[in-house]
Amino acid sequence: MNNVTKFKIFKPAKEIFEAFVDPSKIGKFWFSSSSERWEEGKVITLKYDLYNAEGKIKIIEIQDNKKIVFAWGETEEGHVVTISLTEIDHNNTIIEIIEEGFNENTPDFVHQLIDNKEGWVFMLSCLKSYLEFGVTTLRGALIK
Amino acid sequence: MNNVTKFKIFKPAKEIFEAFVDPSKIGKFWFSSSSERWEEGKVITLKYDLYNAEGKIKIIEIQDNKKIVFAWGETEEGHVVTISLTEIDHNNTIIEIIEEGFNENTPDFVHQLIDNKEGWVFMLSCLKSYLEFGVTTLRGALIK
Repeated sequence: MNNVTKFKIFKPAKEIFEAFVDPSKIGKFWFSSSSERWEEGKVITLKYDLYNAEGKIKIIEIQDNKKIVFAWGETEEGHVVTISLTEIDHNNTIIEIIEEGFNENTPDFVHQLIDNKEGWVFMLSCLKSYLEFGVTTLRGALIK
Repeated sequence: MNNVTKFKIFKPAKEIFEAFVDPSKIGKFWFSSSSERWEEGKVITLKYDLYNAEGKIKIIEIQDNKKIVFAWGETEEGHVVTISLTEIDHNNTIIEIIEEGFNENTPDFVHQLIDNKEGWVFMLSCLKSYLEFGVTTLRGALIK
């Protein structure tokens, strides 16, 4: 079982794509920083200052303004995330995020899925609120 | 198993409480309309114009600026939702939402929990974005 989250953002696909791949933008809605521009094959370091956390992702595939596939971790072994952008018209794009790799035999499988869903919905809300309204301080509000 | 979602909102508890109970406010972040002010014992009709949907809730308990307990439906038989507000200081409140009543023996139990989590996280994002930034058009973005 995978987690699938779909959201409507009233912006061109290119703007949404750039929000992820351009390291000057990610801090407005998700991680605090991204070590460099996301490109196929690269390993990127993501930092989250608020939680004093750091992690790496491996970029598996990039299709400009359409698709980003990455794995959590330095290799392609971790959970795989696929971000797809479908531009309905110039100012209306559907973003779909799929995270795969959950193990149904793990005792806390259901908790993992729910926590993961929580994270994606909140990130997408922050992304929409940043791109559509310029709000950059919504993030960091979830309490575990 | 229940769904618990906790969020930080940089507003006094009273403002957050009023956003739910005052029918002139709910349309800014959640349902399109609420038939009347939420008070203990009342049955309230909630409408969601975008989805052409209507539902009723039964208000079970109200503690001004602190707690709202309601059941989905006209009686107290449905899932029960408890909204708790804890004011950390004047402009910093923790809102916790618990939904109870999921049946672990239902075949789509996990999907129900995940869908439900998606709904609460998005509603809370819209609420935060409304109260802190005056953004009232974030809602309606989730696609099933």
